Amino acid sequence: MNDARTSSGSTILNTLSLRCVECFALYPSIEEGGKPRYRCDCGGVLDVEMQSLSAFPPVGASQEISTVLSNIESEGDLVPAAGSDLRQLFDGRATTPPIWSADADNLLLDYSGVWRYRELILPVPEQYIISRPEGNTSLYPVGMENCGPGRIGHRQIGLYAGLERLYLKHEGENPTGSFKDRGMTVGVTMANVLGAQAVACASTGNTSASLASYAAQAGMRGFVFLPAGNVASGKLAQSLAYGATTIQIDGDFDAAMHLVEQVCAELGIYLLNSLNPFRVEGQKAIGFELLQQLDWQAPDWLVLPAGNLGNTSAIGKAFRQAYQLSLISHLPRIASIQAAGANPFYRSFKQGFAQQEHVQAHTIATAIKIGNPVSYTRARRVIEETDGVVEEVTDEEILAAKTIIDRSGIGCEPASAATLAGMRKLVERGVIKRDDRVVGILTGTLLKDTQTGIPPSATSTAVAANIEAVRSILRQ
Amino acid sequence: MNDARTSSGSTILNTLSLRCVECFALYPSIEEGGKPRYRCDCGGVLDVEMQSLSAFPPVGASQEISTVLSNIESEGDLVPAAGSDLRQLFDGRATTPPIWSADADNLLLDYSGVWRYRELILPVPEQYIISRPEGNTSLYPVGMENCGPGRIGHRQIGLYAGLERLYLKHEGENPTGSFKDRGMTVGVTMANVLGAQAVACASTGNTSASLASYAAQAGMRGFVFLPAGNVASGKLAQSLAYGATTIQIDGDFDAAMHLVEQVCAELGIYLLNSLNPFRVEGQKAIGFELLQQLDWQAPDWLVLPAGNLGNTSAIGKAFRQAYQLSLISHLPRIASIQAAGANPFYRSFKQGFAQQEHVQAHTIATAIKIGNPVSYTRARRVIEETDGVVEEVTDEEILAAKTIIDRSGIGCEPASAATLAGMRKLVERGVIKRDDRVVGILTGTLLKDTQTGIPPSATSTAVAANIEAVRSILRQ
Repeated sequence: MNDARTSSGSTILNTLSLRCVECFALYPSIEEGGKPRYRCDCGGVLDVEMQSLSAFPPVGASQEISTVLSNIESEGDLVPAAGSDLRQLFDGRATTPPIWSADADNLLLDYSGVWRYRELILPVPEQYIISRPEGNTSLYPVGMENCGPGRIGHRQIGLYAGLERLYLKHEGENPTGSFKDRGMTVGVTMANVLGAQAVACASTGNTSASLASYAAQAGMRGFVFLPAGNVASGKLAQSLAYGATTIQIDGDFDAAMHLVEQVCAELGIYLLNSLNPFRVEGQKAIGFELLQQLDWQAPDWLVLPAGNLGNTSAIGKAFRQAYQLSLISHLPRIASIQAAGANPFYRSFKQGFAQQEHVQAHTIATAIKIGNPVSYTRARRVIEETDGVVEEVTDEEILAAKTIIDRSGIGCEPASAATLAGMRKLVERGVIKRDDRVVGILTGTLLKDTQTGIPPSATSTAVAANIEAVRSILRQ
Repeated sequence: MNDARTSSGSTILNTLSLRCVECFALYPSIEEGGKPRYRCDCGGVLDVEMQSLSAFPPVGASQEISTVLSNIESEGDLVPAAGSDLRQLFDGRATTPPIWSADADNLLLDYSGVWRYRELILPVPEQYIISRPEGNTSLYPVGMENCGPGRIGHRQIGLYAGLERLYLKHEGENPTGSFKDRGMTVGVTMANVLGAQAVACASTGNTSASLASYAAQAGMRGFVFLPAGNVASGKLAQSLAYGATTIQIDGDFDAAMHLVEQVCAELGIYLLNSLNPFRVEGQKAIGFELLQQLDWQAPDWLVLPAGNLGNTSAIGKAFRQAYQLSLISHLPRIASIQAAGANPFYRSFKQGFAQQEHVQAHTIATAIKIGNPVSYTRARRVIEETDGVVEEVTDEEILAAKTIIDRSGIGCEPASAATLAGMRKLVERGVIKRDDRVVGILTGTLLKDTQTGIPPSATSTAVAANIEAVRSILRQ
């Protein structure tokens, strides 16, 4: 990993620090000799801090943009006045259509739903960036009041939740079918800055599909470690098709997670599982993009599925930064929804976060089947500072909610449906009010898992190819 | 089907005519009594003609836009001068970000990759439109020369094709994972105009998934007829999940196609298979969008998979209209690629289109496994007027090309890979030149079919959860 010592690489890395979320120790983003660091000496997870955004105007940036950026200080001391300038910058980029001018090899970074917000994601020279582009996922209005004409089927979701003004942001519309692409474009870009030849992760499936795809695009080798028998078929097929070396571990996700850390340290492979602090920075873009789609009018609640707690941490951090920069005028409350069989965060929440819990995870929602979440401390901070809540829902509640989302014509993978199941419960309990403005996150596409919660194909019996046979079916 | 007789409905329908592609007979778009017509009395397929676009300024259109539209006459007599005005209109809409203003139920039509071009698709009052939105699919630069930094893995595709300046447009990035959503948003909108309560299609899978999703959104019943055992698992799962009544026919696609026509006529269900003339109008948007993404600089070649020939017809029609309106300065040549086991169009082409051929279709590429294509006559016109070609590729060539696309990190369903297999063959034969500017269409996402052409998961053997076991795997 040598490129980090070239001038561009080291310039980037010098402006970034890594802060331990447990003991607050501060580290350079890269150690002497170009070695990346993933954990604090105390074992804690590390969070990215930018020392000064102003040092990194985008390549080719106008004087105007440089002025905007010079008004933004390090995260610890964000200047509220920068908000309107940044909003103008981001809104201007959102009007850029994805046009390839003749023979040019431009990157369309403004069109990426991640790199559009690059000053708040990773200030890196453009030539290092590995982007499909990604993001630009739909925000579907599905509430009883806001679903509009042409979406009367979608209104069933709002009815089920009991919410008048509900939006669902469908992260399954990313290139590989899940939100993971947002973190991966940043993680693989960082691997590229470091000159890495290979990247690896442990995953419940979506991360490995995304890693395999972005590693292939960048010409790097990909290694993915999956818990055997616990990965939906679509996700496994993606990792294999994109050409990653796919190793099924005879153990659960937490065992795979532990192993990949050892393997990366031993073999000098860049680690891209959720320990990687830069992936969280990319996932923040879910938060920025949904705020922009709401014209920077923050919702009252953000509801999302919670497994390893990376998304809770990332979207919470995005909201915090947007609030500090005055991009929004209040912090949305965050509701993290866990499967009842994989609920360590819920257990901790019920005790007022007195201690971190671990469980042996069991749920049909494989994407959140995690017993020992890596981002516990970060996510706890998010719940505390947004006056948030953690809820649990049973597999039966997840499957019932999935049927509602599927039958509306939108569809999602099982873990995503925890969002709807959880918001229904919180509305019933009076925590979320019927007229609150609520955004829910769907994390993956229906096609990621075409078995769990899909009606059996036996309901579509083969009939003879004549009209009488069809008539008798339709009469049933 | 009563709404057609309301003032809005009848106004729309009066400006549209249906022209038989075989005998050129002209019909109103709707018969007396509100009955839709799908075929000419001679049995021929019908094509939509707009009598005058100027009668339908978008709701709330400015004087300026009305003036643009009044300059555009019926398709038979398109006014070239309208091109620059239309380009300004479409380019202006392409800069509209998908922002939901507070509490508004706007439709974001300008953000749809279909309805952005609505004057050339279906002039219909906004309140009838059923849109996700759809389209806005990526155009990936993957040629040896134009793939740019950050895409060195994608360059393998250009190397395999032997092309310097190649783009792949990935229609698998539509909401239900295939290009079919572009035709379906228009078809279901037309069903809505007609006040239909139920819609039906026969399908190799992608159409049924799309119909099921859009019917659900619109609150209509969906019926899909599938050839039993010939539909990829992802597509079948989608139809079932979205709640369509799914009937597997003990016969091939052509038998299912025949049956659904009878059923719709008998039961008054609106027919949305490829006979439906309005779906083709929506699919034209693939052509308009790729031209816009290339800044209206038409490519030399457009290469696409060919089964039922709807896409060849639709994209050809889009190019013809864009050329007649001076949106582009030359017509791209079109290369339609068939599977060798399902090659009736190729057989006709080799005889100079002396006669229409039928075959018993056999190919692993289920999406183009069609022996008797509905849009033969329209597609023949496209190949003839663009100086195009029809090529065939074996299943082995399709699978080899799919591996290249998958391993690059982009991925696609088997039928899509016919595009790359075909262009490689045409470059080898010298029909397409190495330095031609070429666009290829990928029709569906990798996740539509996670079995065909995916490396067996046996290559990812489960190993014990310890570092020694992993080390031994990595050493292999």
